Amino acid sequence: MPELRRDPITGRWVIISTEREKRPTSFKLTVERKGGFCPFCEGNEQHTPSEIMAYRSNGSERDTAGWTLRVVPNKYPALHIEGELNREGEGMFDKMNGIGAHEVVVESPDHEMTMAKMEPTHIENVFWAFRDRMLDLKRDKRFRYILIFKNQGEAAGATLDHSHSQIIALPIIPKLASEEITGAKAYFNYKERCVYCDIIAQEKAESTRIVEENPDFIAISPFAARFPFETWILPKQHSAFFENAQKKEYESLSKLLRIVLTKMDRALATPPYNMIIHSSPFYENTQDFYHWHIELMPKLTKVAGFESGTGFYINPTSPEEAAQFLREASLSG
Amino acid sequence: MPELRRDPITGRWVIISTEREKRPTSFKLTVERKGGFCPFCEGNEQHTPSEIMAYRSNGSERDTAGWTLRVVPNKYPALHIEGELNREGEGMFDKMNGIGAHEVVVESPDHEMTMAKMEPTHIENVFWAFRDRMLDLKRDKRFRYILIFKNQGEAAGATLDHSHSQIIALPIIPKLASEEITGAKAYFNYKERCVYCDIIAQEKAESTRIVEENPDFIAISPFAARFPFETWILPKQHSAFFENAQKKEYESLSKLLRIVLTKMDRALATPPYNMIIHSSPFYENTQDFYHWHIELMPKLTKVAGFESGTGFYINPTSPEEAAQFLREASLSG
Repeated sequence: MPELRRDPITGRWVIISTEREKRPTSFKLTVERKGGFCPFCEGNEQHTPSEIMAYRSNGSERDTAGWTLRVVPNKYPALHIEGELNREGEGMFDKMNGIGAHEVVVESPDHEMTMAKMEPTHIENVFWAFRDRMLDLKRDKRFRYILIFKNQGEAAGATLDHSHSQIIALPIIPKLASEEITGAKAYFNYKERCVYCDIIAQEKAESTRIVEENPDFIAISPFAARFPFETWILPKQHSAFFENAQKKEYESLSKLLRIVLTKMDRALATPPYNMIIHSSPFYENTQDFYHWHIELMPKLTKVAGFESGTGFYINPTSPEEAAQFLREASLSG
Repeated sequence: MPELRRDPITGRWVIISTEREKRPTSFKLTVERKGGFCPFCEGNEQHTPSEIMAYRSNGSERDTAGWTLRVVPNKYPALHIEGELNREGEGMFDKMNGIGAHEVVVESPDHEMTMAKMEPTHIENVFWAFRDRMLDLKRDKRFRYILIFKNQGEAAGATLDHSHSQIIALPIIPKLASEEITGAKAYFNYKERCVYCDIIAQEKAESTRIVEENPDFIAISPFAARFPFETWILPKQHSAFFENAQKKEYESLSKLLRIVLTKMDRALATPPYNMIIHSSPFYENTQDFYHWHIELMPKLTKVAGFESGTGFYINPTSPEEAAQFLREASLSG
């Protein structure tokens, strides 16, 4: 059983995942590429754990071909779904058994497809799948947070080329999510306004950091971006929960995301990237002050490693230049 | 002039370093390798900015050969030393002009030397240089924190092979340092004991996570390690400030560090790594509850990128296994 352990100084929780491959010289987080074989391709359904859900339009059977999107358990999960949540001490240290869900969203049956190349309606399907899984996982009262993210490209941590995202349901709240909650709450207590709504208002007034916008969403280079070309996508309508968006918002978001990803591909030569959905934890009464959003981080610099050891970032590209460069990038090849 | 910008939600400060190379397709943090030429090698002193200090035993002139260790300004500094510290708002956003120092410690005149191969007395010199620079930079009242770190190997962010460390003096406190201060203070308020001293006591009692120890220092795999083989080195004598250590402590530390680095090289095939000195900020009255230490992070996994986007870590190697593996590693080649 993996363990969740809490750093006694900072309160940061870590999954100590002892059952994965652990030979000191071979650290892999998920499956290995094997000579061109891809378990996520259509026709290879038997090579993944049995599917949790799939979108199928032709009435095809579970775990067979004929799907447009498929959600399966991660074959090498970081956390296990079975068991009681058990908090305990070990002297001064705190731990929990590693209860959680770890799922993979196979976004398309086509091995060559990327999110930037998908039709917006197909991207929308991916968001519907995220929402469907969130709503289902939320019913499990052991979980307090659901992390949804996508690692695109090997340098961003993907171990399989085939376009996919991951969903991790956690019995704890990740550090950065707590920090956002704490910061947004402090701002709300002082101003009685949502800090993200205020950011959107100022970005619209200044316009120098806007990458793209449509009636429902805005994509910006954040004022204090940690990474070159870091981009946030925020709904203009205040809401703490990704899963509570309107149908037309998912449509709008899919269109906007496709434009932003296409521009990144064109302007930055198809960079590896991480995409993370920041949505509210479940039981924190965040509706007034938290504002869900997406953070997109192309991997352009060699992360100096000292950044995760210090929490301090040096960004060699100003957000204003990054936004301008992406704004002006062509959408046609 | 670079800018320091504050994320309005989390309070995280970022250096936006606009003067560095900023062409969207070429992001380099420091100088480029040029066909084998190394500006840090003995005899090439004219190819670095003029030295701030050097250890020379033979009475040789400034910026000439004959040194054993040399500290120079970073040729591509992230921050500038000249100017007034100027905090200002930009609507709801907060920024400061990018005042700070950014120095490079060239640890040895020998291009092939690594810290693991240095004589302990030479490593001691490196620590003395850190201390000398800290004490000097501390006199500048604009600075609140001094970050001392080493990126060893390209994958850890080093852009020059020649063994070196970096010193960055900052007018702000990096996020992780504040978190350590806040956490250690909360623990002290509750227990009236230093959390790090308690960790040392428990690790000594359990012994499963000890990598190495001597009378003055202990090297452990921390209970909630973020990375495989992450190792902390702590002084057994409580002290908040690296720069206040006794002479015999620097001697002991150098001996211990050399053993730990040698074991890492043997056990993990000379891994790239980041080493960060965690010492107290200057004006925070931390002496009772903060405890300086060193964090060593070998770079074995491809960092999935989502980790810096979530503050959440998955460590595939348990600290107990890591400590055992290092403990049992041979010191002789």
